Amino acid sequence: MSFLTKGYTEDIDKVINNAVFSAESSNMVVLRDIEVYSLCEHHMLPFYGKCHIGYIPKNKLLGVSKLARIVEVYARRLQIQERLTSQIADAIKDAIDVEGVGVVMECKHLCMMMRGVEKQNSFMTTSTVLGSFHNQLATRQEFMNLIGTGRNQF
Amino acid sequence: MSFLTKGYTEDIDKVINNAVFSAESSNMVVLRDIEVYSLCEHHMLPFYGKCHIGYIPKNKLLGVSKLARIVEVYARRLQIQERLTSQIADAIKDAIDVEGVGVVMECKHLCMMMRGVEKQNSFMTTSTVLGSFHNQLATRQEFMNLIGTGRNQF
Amino acid sequence: MSFLTKGYTEDIDKVINNAVFSAESSNMVVLRDIEVYSLCEHHMLPFYGKCHIGYIPKNKLLGVSKLARIVEVYARRLQIQERLTSQIADAIKDAIDVEGVGVVMECKHLCMMMRGVEKQNSFMTTSTVLGSFHNQLATRQEFMNLIGTGRNQF
Amino acid sequence: MSFLTKGYTEDIDKVINNAVFSAESSNMVVLRDIEVYSLCEHHMLPFYGKCHIGYIPKNKLLGVSKLARIVEVYARRLQIQERLTSQIADAIKDAIDVEGVGVVMECKHLCMMMRGVEKQNSFMTTSTVLGSFHNQLATRQEFMNLIGTGRNQF
Amino acid sequence: MSFLTKGYTEDIDKVINNAVFSAESSNMVVLRDIEVYSLCEHHMLPFYGKCHIGYIPKNKLLGVSKLARIVEVYARRLQIQERLTSQIADAIKDAIDVEGVGVVMECKHLCMMMRGVEKQNSFMTTSTVLGSFHNQLATRQEFMNLIGTGRNQF
Amino acid sequence: MSFLTKGYTEDIDKVINNAVFSAESSNMVVLRDIEVYSLCEHHMLPFYGKCHIGYIPKNKLLGVSKLARIVEVYARRLQIQERLTSQIADAIKDAIDVEGVGVVMECKHLCMMMRGVEKQNSFMTTSTVLGSFHNQLATRQEFMNLIGTGRNQF
Amino acid sequence: MSFLTKGYTEDIDKVINNAVFSAESSNMVVLRDIEVYSLCEHHMLPFYGKCHIGYIPKNKLLGVSKLARIVEVYARRLQIQERLTSQIADAIKDAIDVEGVGVVMECKHLCMMMRGVEKQNSFMTTSTVLGSFHNQLATRQEFMNLIGTGRNQF
Amino acid sequence: MSFLTKGYTEDIDKVINNAVFSAESSNMVVLRDIEVYSLCEHHMLPFYGKCHIGYIPKNKLLGVSKLARIVEVYARRLQIQERLTSQIADAIKDAIDVEGVGVVMECKHLCMMMRGVEKQNSFMTTSTVLGSFHNQLATRQEFMNLIGTGRNQF
Amino acid sequence: MSFLTKGYTEDIDKVINNAVFSAESSNMVVLRDIEVYSLCEHHMLPFYGKCHIGYIPKNKLLGVSKLARIVEVYARRLQIQERLTSQIADAIKDAIDVEGVGVVMECKHLCMMMRGVEKQNSFMTTSTVLGSFHNQLATRQEFMNLIGTGRNQF
Amino acid sequence: MSFLTKGYTEDIDKVINNAVFSAESSNMVVLRDIEVYSLCEHHMLPFYGKCHIGYIPKNKLLGVSKLARIVEVYARRLQIQERLTSQIADAIKDAIDVEGVGVVMECKHLCMMMRGVEKQNSFMTTSTVLGSFHNQLATRQEFMNLIGTGRNQF
Repeated sequence: MSFLTKGYTEDIDKVINNAVFSAESSNMVVLRDIEVYSLCEHHMLPFYGKCHIGYIPKNKLLGVSKLARIVEVYARRLQIQERLTSQIADAIKDAIDVEGVGVVMECKHLCMMMRGVEKQNSFMTTSTVLGSFHNQLATRQEFMNLIGTGRNQF
Repeated sequence: MSFLTKGYTEDIDKVINNAVFSAESSNMVVLRDIEVYSLCEHHMLPFYGKCHIGYIPKNKLLGVSKLARIVEVYARRLQIQERLTSQIADAIKDAIDVEGVGVVMECKHLCMMMRGVEKQNSFMTTSTVLGSFHNQLATRQEFMNLIGTGRNQF
Repeated sequence: MSFLTKGYTEDIDKVINNAVFSAESSNMVVLRDIEVYSLCEHHMLPFYGKCHIGYIPKNKLLGVSKLARIVEVYARRLQIQERLTSQIADAIKDAIDVEGVGVVMECKHLCMMMRGVEKQNSFMTTSTVLGSFHNQLATRQEFMNLIGTGRNQF
Repeated sequence: MSFLTKGYTEDIDKVINNAVFSAESSNMVVLRDIEVYSLCEHHMLPFYGKCHIGYIPKNKLLGVSKLARIVEVYARRLQIQERLTSQIADAIKDAIDVEGVGVVMECKHLCMMMRGVEKQNSFMTTSTVLGSFHNQLATRQEFMNLIGTGRNQF
Repeated sequence: MSFLTKGYTEDIDKVINNAVFSAESSNMVVLRDIEVYSLCEHHMLPFYGKCHIGYIPKNKLLGVSKLARIVEVYARRLQIQERLTSQIADAIKDAIDVEGVGVVMECKHLCMMMRGVEKQNSFMTTSTVLGSFHNQLATRQEFMNLIGTGRNQF
Repeated sequence: MSFLTKGYTEDIDKVINNAVFSAESSNMVVLRDIEVYSLCEHHMLPFYGKCHIGYIPKNKLLGVSKLARIVEVYARRLQIQERLTSQIADAIKDAIDVEGVGVVMECKHLCMMMRGVEKQNSFMTTSTVLGSFHNQLATRQEFMNLIGTGRNQF
Repeated sequence: MSFLTKGYTEDIDKVINNAVFSAESSNMVVLRDIEVYSLCEHHMLPFYGKCHIGYIPKNKLLGVSKLARIVEVYARRLQIQERLTSQIADAIKDAIDVEGVGVVMECKHLCMMMRGVEKQNSFMTTSTVLGSFHNQLATRQEFMNLIGTGRNQF
Repeated sequence: MSFLTKGYTEDIDKVINNAVFSAESSNMVVLRDIEVYSLCEHHMLPFYGKCHIGYIPKNKLLGVSKLARIVEVYARRLQIQERLTSQIADAIKDAIDVEGVGVVMECKHLCMMMRGVEKQNSFMTTSTVLGSFHNQLATRQEFMNLIGTGRNQF
Repeated sequence: MSFLTKGYTEDIDKVINNAVFSAESSNMVVLRDIEVYSLCEHHMLPFYGKCHIGYIPKNKLLGVSKLARIVEVYARRLQIQERLTSQIADAIKDAIDVEGVGVVMECKHLCMMMRGVEKQNSFMTTSTVLGSFHNQLATRQEFMNLIGTGRNQF
Repeated sequence: MSFLTKGYTEDIDKVINNAVFSAESSNMVVLRDIEVYSLCEHHMLPFYGKCHIGYIPKNKLLGVSKLARIVEVYARRLQIQERLTSQIADAIKDAIDVEGVGVVMECKHLCMMMRGVEKQNSFMTTSTVLGSFHNQLATRQEFMNLIGTGRNQF
């Protein structure tokens, strides 16, 4: 259990700091299909799925595995998916000053599969878009294209 | 039969009320691939398929399985698919005051597969979009992207 | 042969009339993957494939299997695919006064597969869009999304 | 060899003329997945793949297999893919006065698979868009949707 | 090791020069699914995946395998994916004066799969768009459509 | 309802007789993926799926669509899947004196999907093998191979 | 929690008894893809997947949903997958005296995906075969064929 | 029509003779997925699909395209699928003295799809096995494996 | 690097001992699709893929994640795939006295993809079978069936 | 051209010798999906596809990329597929004294796709089995299973 909630004891700055590089251009960077496992704070049952992150750097880049580590820090807590999605987007925006950032998360919830309604094939998708990902249609569309929303099967 | 039409005796407020959370952001929430089984009111034969729901909260969120339960309440009646789709959208709009809501339903109709024209591979898709899902192209498009329309096989 | 051309003797009004319902909302209704078999009027060889129909009702709805029956009436004649597509769209517009209607048809032509060029994997796609399906980009795009163009394999 | 370059001796008018019909509407007509085999003019090695053609007629239609024959006439020569794509579009525009025409070709090049860089899974996509296919975003998008670009596997 | 970093000793002009043709039209040319293998400069572990290149020529075309060779020159170095993507776009722009160019790269990073976070299914997508690929929505969208982003599995 | 149970009033001999041909060899004939719709005799809810039939003729062949008609005769009754499978096999054995016959049926049961356990993805497979399909391992295996058991998706 | 372990309080005879029919033949009956959710008794984390059951009746048949209910009774306990598989096979053998029975279960274990080794794509398959399913190669092979082992994706 | 029945006027020896090579070993040779188009002799409607041929040579090999030509000779006649399959096997046995030969054909019949029972997804599979393909289980199994029976989609 | 070769310092007994259970039956247990990453001892480049393990217990069972841990211990060394496969099988046989054990491993080798022959889609499969997995055809076949050999895509 | 036929000048011993290791066990080793490009000796047109190799070593192993190099040596000549398959099997048997060896090759022939019969989807499969791969059914079956015959798409 302490493993599943170890996110509470991790320091996001310590996780990120040692892997920030200076960006030479300002193009979109996307990390797709990051596996995410978390615990629903109402039923203490797991929800799990995939997280997709995109951002357009100003002058700093995050090392590729740091994006995945940020997901881990916030997922290893008691969560609801909507908040988890927002927290990841905020953490990236805070860590390296970005032009824009977007996070999409697609999860299956065991509390929904194993209990009550027993809908066994549904999954929930949540998204947070900040900065140019929110304001510019072209950027948001490119992000949606690059992560291939709606095509995952898991 | 009373099981298949049990929706008539369920109270939508009772189904929803105990799982409304305060929203911390106003991003889109989508629940995809909710299995739906209903009875066509003309032939009393089942139609079944998948329902996709999306909404942008104002300041309240619905628990993940509540969306599925709302579908159940209206599906467990004698229905036509067009009305069922509208009712689900209206119920969500009424339950938590949303910025916008969209419902898309894709169903196979046994009355069409087993009888008469005997088109065994067709299915019907109906959609209802309200609020910002209706007025803003970007929002509607994002919803369509996130539910992955036109990709289901069942 | 009389079976294959029975469409000539069918009366479209008689086929439709007994299944028109009053619409309670004006959202898009789509019937996808209607199998269609017709005869090419030049070579008397079959062409076959899938027909997708969408419409936004004003205040009347067509029963789900009636859309398929309309396809049958016009397909069971000597045809060319371009005309068949238009006729179906016109018939729906005439039967129930719609806000807009769209028809897309994807067919393989045996005259092309078995004879002459012998291109065995090609297929022809024709589309007709009327009313709001023609004038409003958002509506046309939503229709294209909901029928999942370009994804059929048959 | 004379078979592989027989396109040089064929007369495009003779190929087309006997299959022009009068159009009753001006909707898009698409012929997808036309197999194409040609010879690269630099290495005399084959390139092959699929060609997709779309056009919006003014008042004349081409018979379905004529579109495939036009592809054959130009493919059965020593070619580069970029030129081949343009020639097909031009030939259709010349044959029947169209509102717009688009040609997309996706090919594997044996000169690239068997020799030198030996990239065995790459393929080249070339496109030519004329008239309303070039000027109107909605038309170009609809064409791209209907041919299902980026989904072919061969 | 000298093989894996042979890119440092290659001259991009020498690689390209002997395969520039005069363009007869100015349509988009796309080379999709170019396999790319490179070494991450931080952990000296491979990253690999697919690179997609598109450009609209002014009056010069690059031979089909030259595009793949340019990828090789820059990939066979110690790299980060973000920089590699930019370098390829710049090299094409410099070699033949284009109207616009776009490069999208989708890679798996063994440093992320084998070590630390051990996210074994994620991959990173980076994109660079220059000229009309950056300025014109229609062009960028067409490029995204033609490379079929978000659909690769590897 | 009378349509759904019309099998009770059909005469199997009348259905078959006019399409028996003399066989020139004794090789296996298989008809795969025959759609079947029936009504479960306990809940009066539909079950539907695919039926696969194989037989080795002695000296008579059945016309291809007759096999499908035999399925219809027995499916259009109140049934249980186990009995339906046996009846089809017996009917073929009786109609034309065969060396062996096998019937495999894969169905989804709405009584199981919509009610009670609500297992929405399960399906039941039943098989009957008679004559050489029962006694000879090689024949049974070839039949299983030719129908591609376990690979259907519906 | 009481829901997740409700299997302890259920009486298998009561679950089964009211749906035993007399069998008219002795052919194999298979129920495939029964969703199963259980709790691993060591970590109290869920494991879930699919269960496939086959049996050859002597003179009694089980109703189709009863097979699924038996799975539920034993899965809704603290379990290990190996024991769960055996218990289901034994329960069927005890309920109706069968000629043979086989159970195959394919599950993902969250204790393995979320913790420790973090192998996120592995799954465990266990099988129990009794009676003729154990002794006769042909029967076991037919069962393996009919459930399509090794082809599930979940 | 004369094109569709041109098989009657072709001489099988003339088609084959000029492409017989001496075999250096006696291993199985398989040609898979040969497209076949024929006309059903009862309804004069097309049936079409795929033909798979395997043989073990004694001391002569057939050129690869000759196998396909033999299929054409017999398919371009009024046929029933059972006879067509046998004729192809016999023709190969006669042309080059083989150790064994097998032919499997999977076809859709338009007479069944467009008329009467209107089963639109069924197809018929016929097989003929001669010599060692008939007598030796191992050989027949290897042939079935190599053609991948039951996996075709068309 | 010390991470990638940490297997040298791990004690297999310590890894396994605390998760051995007493078996209540002697049926096959399979763990499929265990991701494996190792380093080729000749080029120090990674090879990676999937490992499938099956065993029939005598009276002891291994905890599900222990099988994956055993793979890790031997993979995190400089290896060749053939030896790695054998070592895993031997370790399981030694840990719990089994009736039989089988290990199949399917890997891509970067030394083969990035260098020399540059075959980018090949992968190597190695297998070790001991005890009843070696001696009994039925057991080996069942194992091959349950792991679904030849169907992996990675 | 000299590139495409460079196999004539290569020495198989020189290609192999420096990568023979001593085997520690005698289990099957399979290398699947080796891309192969060759030239048909009759039409000088390419044929290409995939080659699968399996062998059971006595006391020597071949380095993983050596198997692919052997394919290259014989493919880069004017060939017929039947002979190419045999030569690869013989070369492996000669290089390291094996217990058994098997080679399966699946190729598309441009001479068949571009010319004459123009069957564009067919491909030829050839196999050679020597030693225990020929004599022992279990070994041959395991090889067929491990290469997943009949499932390739290219």
